[in-house]
Amino acid sequence: MKNYFDSIAQKKSFASDNNSGVHPEILRAIEEANAGHVVAYGDDPYTGLAKEKFREHFGENIDVYFVFNGTAANVLGIQALTRSYHAVICAEVAHLNEDECGAPEKFTGCKLLTVDSDDGKITVEDIQRHLHDFGNEHHVQPRVVSLTQATEMGTVYSPEEIRAIADLVHRYDMFLHMDGARIANAAAGLNVSLREITADAGVDVLSFGGTKNGMMFGEAIVFFNPELSRDFKYYRKQGMQLGSKMRFIAAQFVALLSHDLWRKNAAHANRMARLLEEKVKAIPGVRLPLPVQANGVFPVIPPEVIPRIQEKYFFYIWDEAISQVRWMCSFDTTEEEVNDFVREVREAMR
Amino acid sequence: MKNYFDSIAQKKSFASDNNSGVHPEILRAIEEANAGHVVAYGDDPYTGLAKEKFREHFGENIDVYFVFNGTAANVLGIQALTRSYHAVICAEVAHLNEDECGAPEKFTGCKLLTVDSDDGKITVEDIQRHLHDFGNEHHVQPRVVSLTQATEMGTVYSPEEIRAIADLVHRYDMFLHMDGARIANAAAGLNVSLREITADAGVDVLSFGGTKNGMMFGEAIVFFNPELSRDFKYYRKQGMQLGSKMRFIAAQFVALLSHDLWRKNAAHANRMARLLEEKVKAIPGVRLPLPVQANGVFPVIPPEVIPRIQEKYFFYIWDEAISQVRWMCSFDTTEEEVNDFVREVREAMR
Amino acid sequence: MKNYFDSIAQKKSFASDNNSGVHPEILRAIEEANAGHVVAYGDDPYTGLAKEKFREHFGENIDVYFVFNGTAANVLGIQALTRSYHAVICAEVAHLNEDECGAPEKFTGCKLLTVDSDDGKITVEDIQRHLHDFGNEHHVQPRVVSLTQATEMGTVYSPEEIRAIADLVHRYDMFLHMDGARIANAAAGLNVSLREITADAGVDVLSFGGTKNGMMFGEAIVFFNPELSRDFKYYRKQGMQLGSKMRFIAAQFVALLSHDLWRKNAAHANRMARLLEEKVKAIPGVRLPLPVQANGVFPVIPPEVIPRIQEKYFFYIWDEAISQVRWMCSFDTTEEEVNDFVREVREAMR
Amino acid sequence: MKNYFDSIAQKKSFASDNNSGVHPEILRAIEEANAGHVVAYGDDPYTGLAKEKFREHFGENIDVYFVFNGTAANVLGIQALTRSYHAVICAEVAHLNEDECGAPEKFTGCKLLTVDSDDGKITVEDIQRHLHDFGNEHHVQPRVVSLTQATEMGTVYSPEEIRAIADLVHRYDMFLHMDGARIANAAAGLNVSLREITADAGVDVLSFGGTKNGMMFGEAIVFFNPELSRDFKYYRKQGMQLGSKMRFIAAQFVALLSHDLWRKNAAHANRMARLLEEKVKAIPGVRLPLPVQANGVFPVIPPEVIPRIQEKYFFYIWDEAISQVRWMCSFDTTEEEVNDFVREVREAMR
Repeated sequence: MKNYFDSIAQKKSFASDNNSGVHPEILRAIEEANAGHVVAYGDDPYTGLAKEKFREHFGENIDVYFVFNGTAANVLGIQALTRSYHAVICAEVAHLNEDECGAPEKFTGCKLLTVDSDDGKITVEDIQRHLHDFGNEHHVQPRVVSLTQATEMGTVYSPEEIRAIADLVHRYDMFLHMDGARIANAAAGLNVSLREITADAGVDVLSFGGTKNGMMFGEAIVFFNPELSRDFKYYRKQGMQLGSKMRFIAAQFVALLSHDLWRKNAAHANRMARLLEEKVKAIPGVRLPLPVQANGVFPVIPPEVIPRIQEKYFFYIWDEAISQVRWMCSFDTTEEEVNDFVREVREAMR
Repeated sequence: MKNYFDSIAQKKSFASDNNSGVHPEILRAIEEANAGHVVAYGDDPYTGLAKEKFREHFGENIDVYFVFNGTAANVLGIQALTRSYHAVICAEVAHLNEDECGAPEKFTGCKLLTVDSDDGKITVEDIQRHLHDFGNEHHVQPRVVSLTQATEMGTVYSPEEIRAIADLVHRYDMFLHMDGARIANAAAGLNVSLREITADAGVDVLSFGGTKNGMMFGEAIVFFNPELSRDFKYYRKQGMQLGSKMRFIAAQFVALLSHDLWRKNAAHANRMARLLEEKVKAIPGVRLPLPVQANGVFPVIPPEVIPRIQEKYFFYIWDEAISQVRWMCSFDTTEEEVNDFVREVREAMR
Repeated sequence: MKNYFDSIAQKKSFASDNNSGVHPEILRAIEEANAGHVVAYGDDPYTGLAKEKFREHFGENIDVYFVFNGTAANVLGIQALTRSYHAVICAEVAHLNEDECGAPEKFTGCKLLTVDSDDGKITVEDIQRHLHDFGNEHHVQPRVVSLTQATEMGTVYSPEEIRAIADLVHRYDMFLHMDGARIANAAAGLNVSLREITADAGVDVLSFGGTKNGMMFGEAIVFFNPELSRDFKYYRKQGMQLGSKMRFIAAQFVALLSHDLWRKNAAHANRMARLLEEKVKAIPGVRLPLPVQANGVFPVIPPEVIPRIQEKYFFYIWDEAISQVRWMCSFDTTEEEVNDFVREVREAMR
Repeated sequence: MKNYFDSIAQKKSFASDNNSGVHPEILRAIEEANAGHVVAYGDDPYTGLAKEKFREHFGENIDVYFVFNGTAANVLGIQALTRSYHAVICAEVAHLNEDECGAPEKFTGCKLLTVDSDDGKITVEDIQRHLHDFGNEHHVQPRVVSLTQATEMGTVYSPEEIRAIADLVHRYDMFLHMDGARIANAAAGLNVSLREITADAGVDVLSFGGTKNGMMFGEAIVFFNPELSRDFKYYRKQGMQLGSKMRFIAAQFVALLSHDLWRKNAAHANRMARLLEEKVKAIPGVRLPLPVQANGVFPVIPPEVIPRIQEKYFFYIWDEAISQVRWMCSFDTTEEEVNDFVREVREAMR
């Protein structure tokens, strides 16, 4: 039997945690689920087991839905909380705002009200500046605050910070949404349970990320108040996100949420990021304006060295204006790769 | 190492071709693609190879995009051809109209103009009845005709029928869209190439189905006129259908389109359907109002026997009014299962 | 002072009730309202008085909003009752379905489920055929039935017919919407109050038509359950229908709803339509397949005589297939014009 | 004959130019147009004459459409230039962004990219900061720059400033949109023709404001490149903005664009604003941070005096943070009213 992809050379990079492949345990669960026929669209025992796993981690009183990707998890989660004249408050750098090609506006009709942020986090004060004109029909009505945890800049909200924002938001009859594409990295970084930075901290709806933490595809939308998901199944279908062979998303989540695999994967990626941080910090000319609290490192380096390092390891420029780059670690990043990469950086910096 | 799903009993059914799992060759391709890091979102060598495979089958002058599911393939394909004041003509039973929870209207804003059909197919005359009020701003403007091949009722358009519709459609500066969720079953049933019933017959945009023919997830949108896809990548992203670990959709298509696996899978399912047809035809009280031209059988049976057969093999009622049911075969249906199922039917009919 | 429009010749026609101008009393109210400054966007005393007038006619427990035209009244009224995965059941000939260029789909995302109808009316049985798949996420969820009163074909629902439909609709937790672009003609034709065929018959939301009954512009959306209008003001604004100099819509409604002007205008138009019916009925070769219950006459006449009559009086062909035309009377149609028009028809028919 | 509105007291204010009524000449044109029947929806001689007037002012090679209000003029004009993955760059204070309850996002699906501005104007440099990520499917694609002329803060772009922005925009294959709700005030303030700050300066699509300059209702969308309006009539209808008795919008524009009425009205309002500026400048404690270039004055006054002045003359607080208020003059503001108002301010400031 011939291989399909012999022509493709194997590489590693620090470009993104979604450049990695699938964790072997997750692939094993997929293979095991590939047996016989089951009802399509989620009414199957694999999906039942996966939902059970979510309840183990997040409590009994939740409702959970699987979708294909993070864009959809965020957009549909927000759709469940809004009508088209509402507004969503988020960081300007939020994936929701910057990297979804306007999917939130297109699908929900809502306006995003953005907040400038140096470290990717937004504060109670930032949010308060948008809390006006309630009841004024000329103005969009603030309805949702969306936090990214861990943020797009590798920082992390503490449970207390989330709680403070949740309290504010709920005082205004609004909802707290969390983009948890890297929620596992945040929980691992804070050394807390998934629950402590979501349900217990006042989050109403969570996008629970799988793909960046070793899955092949699939994200979950977790509702901590089942009232909010009453008609969500229709939005998922109308939003083109109801998978027919749902068992293959479900099986992945079963593996990810068993035996603490989610935490092991995330903690490893975080560890590699901190290792990378430590080593490059020692290189003259490298500046690290942000703390490394998850699996990303955001150093400022001279622009002329960037292409030299990219020759061997591809990565993205985060902010051209200040020559800040983004280096991401993932569940399969090895210490050797970090060391080799640091060597490349050091040489390029000479 | 413990198994994840030992508690789940294995079953087979005739309920739907998406109740089946993944073909072993396709799973093998996925496993092989799980090596190292590649750029996310489709700019990777696996996706490159998969597109090459599509060009082998459909010709050089195409443009092809991968999405997660059939809903998205249809809705986004139509989005590429329309603006919101346009209308799409399709059969009333078209999946696009009946089974997408209004996704086409929500995403594109377009109205669907439907055509009644006894066998799932629509004709030149059906279409012509909707071709009026061009230039009248009070009326939606017909822009796309969408055919399903094979149809939702297991029938198949001949290349000549498609060509006749394409000619009509193009005379009106409209486009021909094909929902090919079961295009492989149609090509196998007609014993023609994929090209003969698409590009060569005048189709402009095709939803090429993978999931119902042995894939885990993933469909392709094939543009036979690259002019039409100029801005499609933005619609895919905004439509929440850009997969990050794209290589795992691509790898599946590489396997499906290699060594004629697509045709083998589809031809097998078709053969099982015809075997089933032949055998149940002989049972008194079973009426078969439609020819079996793909992988579905749509018999009319007495309503009281339906629950008895469903005890062992789950399936759906297609049309309650006339007690018509739907039995689908798939790539993994075996002759033994057909024989056993026929036995159940025969006994229930006594 | 020179006139602006001396070059424009004055004509009359039987083409449409919106080809007429503004009733002198309504113009007088506009002129009177043109005094001093008032707050814009509806928080002015003129709008207050107009709402008071609506309460006189429809009862205290209503909520009423003014918009510019009938398209908006219908679309926004339906938006208030739906989310995007819902469906609206209506006659195929409903203005909502046929003449709004897809505005309902574009704005609400909902699918329209249509019902064939010979006389423009739909029945309990017609509606019931669409009442299935509740709870099935693949299928749009029926939420609203929309009736047109008087219908687009000049027929009228009796209070009992409306009540029967309302009872059905409410049994399914759905809502009854009424497109009342010609509600005044219906009430005048039935010799009942506005309330008897709306609030008292179970209608939930009404588009109350002004323009076709002697106003310059402006329609009202009347909610008979204020719960349903809780966030309507935002939809009106977002739907681009919040007029700044609102007093000039309000003033028109004050005049229309004072001294029974609404009924006088409508009854006159109806009377002219019945006169026209009576007279053309006597002409050999003219067939009248529908009763004249409001202000429209829909005769079937030989196709070749149509252009001859149109030379002097412009009107529209309603159904080319059977050579049915539409003749509309309006508040300013005179008996002489009817007689003259009948003379033209008679001569053309020779 | 009784009056309708004897109970309503006449007042004047400096709150908004749309708190005023209708200029007598415009009302006269409406009355004159109220004669006989004409075809509805714009195919009438009044609309023909009005379009002719627009060509007199803007040149032969334009296409012009009438809608009901400014929200619609802006949203539909932008719809004509965009697809849903595009972005529109505008000032944060732009009416489009701040005062339309999200109508642009809801209808077009586009994201607005905003620019902070002290005086309501945006510059070439502001725009350039948003001109990146062309071709990147994760990012909305900048397509339109929208300027407001005169701005929401009473300032005015010079023809040269507009031209510089148009040149930039066109270099990127983008379009220049102008919200001209107060275009007449800008042209009067600059003492130029309407053409010099629109067609001749590189504007592609203009919202031409009527309501704030003495009309009852109605705005126009002027396309300076008829290619751009090819399918606009469908968007207007689908956008719920096709008026049936169109002649009554058209007649108003005929009057406004005849005998320089547009300029007389605007110049008068501007003159009153400058008079007001001059007089309040002399009052100790009143600060005028912005030049008065159109019909609005934006003074900073102590917060405690605001309610005292509002007792007699209602007006809006523009920026609570710095206690800035907005005083608008309109075509019917008299010198006596300005003097009286200044007296009130002076007394309140004591």
